[in-house]
Amino acid sequence: MQATLLTIGDELLIGQVLDTNAHWISSYLYEQGIELASTMTVSDSKLEIGAALTHAAKTSRVILLTGGLGPTKDDLTLEAIAEHLELPLVFNEETFARIEHIFKELIKRPLSPLHKRQAYQPQGAQTLLNKQGTAPGIWIEKHGVIYIAMPGVPREMKYLITEEVVPRLLPLASSKTRKELTIHTAGWGETQIATAIQAVEDKLPSHISLAYLPSLGTVRVRINAEGDNGEALLKELEAWKVKIVKLLPKELIYGYGNTSMVEVVQQLLLKKKMTLVTAESCTGGMIAHSITERPGASKVFYGSVIAYDNSVKKKLLGVPDHIFKQHGAVSEQAVRAMVKGILPLLGADVAIATSGIAGPSGGTPEKPVGTIWVAIGTRNQIITRKLSFRHDRATNIARTSTTALDMLRRFLLIA
Amino acid sequence: MQATLLTIGDELLIGQVLDTNAHWISSYLYEQGIELASTMTVSDSKLEIGAALTHAAKTSRVILLTGGLGPTKDDLTLEAIAEHLELPLVFNEETFARIEHIFKELIKRPLSPLHKRQAYQPQGAQTLLNKQGTAPGIWIEKHGVIYIAMPGVPREMKYLITEEVVPRLLPLASSKTRKELTIHTAGWGETQIATAIQAVEDKLPSHISLAYLPSLGTVRVRINAEGDNGEALLKELEAWKVKIVKLLPKELIYGYGNTSMVEVVQQLLLKKKMTLVTAESCTGGMIAHSITERPGASKVFYGSVIAYDNSVKKKLLGVPDHIFKQHGAVSEQAVRAMVKGILPLLGADVAIATSGIAGPSGGTPEKPVGTIWVAIGTRNQIITRKLSFRHDRATNIARTSTTALDMLRRFLLIA
Repeated sequence: MQATLLTIGDELLIGQVLDTNAHWISSYLYEQGIELASTMTVSDSKLEIGAALTHAAKTSRVILLTGGLGPTKDDLTLEAIAEHLELPLVFNEETFARIEHIFKELIKRPLSPLHKRQAYQPQGAQTLLNKQGTAPGIWIEKHGVIYIAMPGVPREMKYLITEEVVPRLLPLASSKTRKELTIHTAGWGETQIATAIQAVEDKLPSHISLAYLPSLGTVRVRINAEGDNGEALLKELEAWKVKIVKLLPKELIYGYGNTSMVEVVQQLLLKKKMTLVTAESCTGGMIAHSITERPGASKVFYGSVIAYDNSVKKKLLGVPDHIFKQHGAVSEQAVRAMVKGILPLLGADVAIATSGIAGPSGGTPEKPVGTIWVAIGTRNQIITRKLSFRHDRATNIARTSTTALDMLRRFLLIA
Repeated sequence: MQATLLTIGDELLIGQVLDTNAHWISSYLYEQGIELASTMTVSDSKLEIGAALTHAAKTSRVILLTGGLGPTKDDLTLEAIAEHLELPLVFNEETFARIEHIFKELIKRPLSPLHKRQAYQPQGAQTLLNKQGTAPGIWIEKHGVIYIAMPGVPREMKYLITEEVVPRLLPLASSKTRKELTIHTAGWGETQIATAIQAVEDKLPSHISLAYLPSLGTVRVRINAEGDNGEALLKELEAWKVKIVKLLPKELIYGYGNTSMVEVVQQLLLKKKMTLVTAESCTGGMIAHSITERPGASKVFYGSVIAYDNSVKKKLLGVPDHIFKQHGAVSEQAVRAMVKGILPLLGADVAIATSGIAGPSGGTPEKPVGTIWVAIGTRNQIITRKLSFRHDRATNIARTSTTALDMLRRFLLIA
């Protein structure tokens, strides 16, 4: 089944917004066995949308569209589809009643006349119930091509793709099955991993492919297989996975399949019945934020002191004056003292402490931007590590967070 | 000048790689006054590249291609261009000599026979010197359309775009200039804004367009103008901006142009010579993280207590027991007490406190998931607000952070 994705919006074409929708959709569809033949991005112009539809309809059985379903005048997707299919736009009472209901019961604001626009749809279209917003998804088939329009708001688009679109597309997709396995690693670069597993990679049969997906200090190794029998493919992938895993250090791998570093750390803490706190300087709360963004944090996480200013390191965490004078706030001694200070203060079992120069300013020849100290410790044992990154501020902060969580994971494994 | 960008590569279509090239190119070209009418992504298939070229050639004067210039068999861009233009591929001695030289002098590895492929190009093409790698850029014009092929490696692509492509395109670009103005708002939805400014929007001349870009409780209103005289356009946009701004509450607008909520808050704090701290429960450090991710935070931000567990709210922030018993941790009383506790603790002037049920669990009929209390205050004055969101956990957290920063901004405006 050939599918084309059409994302719509001026903001995507002038670089104001990174098109993460296209990335998410292509990745999710691929996992479901639906591969995109192409994606297109066009501006909020009926002419451009129409030209793209004409092109896509020549080669694709399915055309997915995101964006341009809002209530304002620059939202033209449905008008463009209607013109392309030579169908009138008709008013859908049911959709309008739903929008009215949402405003009355949930938003508790009067309905604007503009919202009436969102209830018009090409004649003959089915609506896809959008439980995350006012604009419904639209599904319409003509001349053997299926047109699926979704809002551009990521939350609403994701809901429609997972709950409405893919369940309807799957029965139409090809009989070939695709399976995949993912090995999550942290600590090595992709070249180092590729070198270690080359002997296995060279022997992979042609229906199995391997990819390295690096991101902020982690690398996912993904193996895919395509064939007729899903169960047989999974067995085959499992066997290759075992061969790959044998060639890598055990602690390098933090999980398999659909997992994340935060999930693994939360589970390890639960298993060890330990509670975590953080004392963050340069990471400024990002570690606490990553942990608490995932449900279930309250079982293992007590809280943090973001000791951004040195006065907080002194006053709350009790980092002694002589450490600042002799070693500075960015030092092994400082992060050790931060761990020692926060554990009794918040009454937890294990702590992460960070202090460093995230940039862009604040570097010295001795401690250039990207110099960051991390400590992990309990009341009995503290380990530390000096990181030397060369990225921009946001990346330095993000990589430090991931590295600190990986240090905690390795610490808990042997704790 | 209509331009289309064609990015080529299987990895872009299965979500393995986020297409940051398209984002960078569209943003850079826009700054240079060259707007992309559309972008397309296709797989490493001669058929798909050919179909995309046929489509793009119909509407565009310039087609930029990235990717598929490597030495391996899945690199098919030049073959596809040659077939599309019905031109033979010819061997370019000069390019080959350069590749030989790079391998001999710089890489110090023997040249692979595969690299000979990189020296073939469509007859009549000009090469664009790529000082960052072996594959040259290719520039060829036929039937009034310019085809420009560049490698997909970001460093090489960026070099070619800035040093070779844009300098050649600019003299061909239309004399039309484009200007834009952005109004940043927080607190209203796009429909509410659209309704308020409809009278002005209806009167906009055809060379001026207006777009609403909503994101997590903020909406950017962008007006663009196209014409001959950049200075005149800016004056015109300024005049329309004034008309729009008059129809909106003053405090709704937090900035203009290239700014962010965090930047505005940082600048307000600097101006008022005030220091900020946060006491975060449900936001779990996200507010501290957003503030510290931006350079300059250390001038206005002391730190935070992430009081995720109630024990931390009691012990460190001194929230009294009777508040938990009578009102619960998610209450106006609790966030007030958190502000009162953190200000003297960290010695700052103004504090943000949050406490709520981010979800997915923890809701009750009285306090459903998405019920969040926020307080902003100094030693003399505390304001509070109850938020009722209906999003997933991550979105509830993110919207609370933005809303809290906006509350702080409004608080500082009259402080």
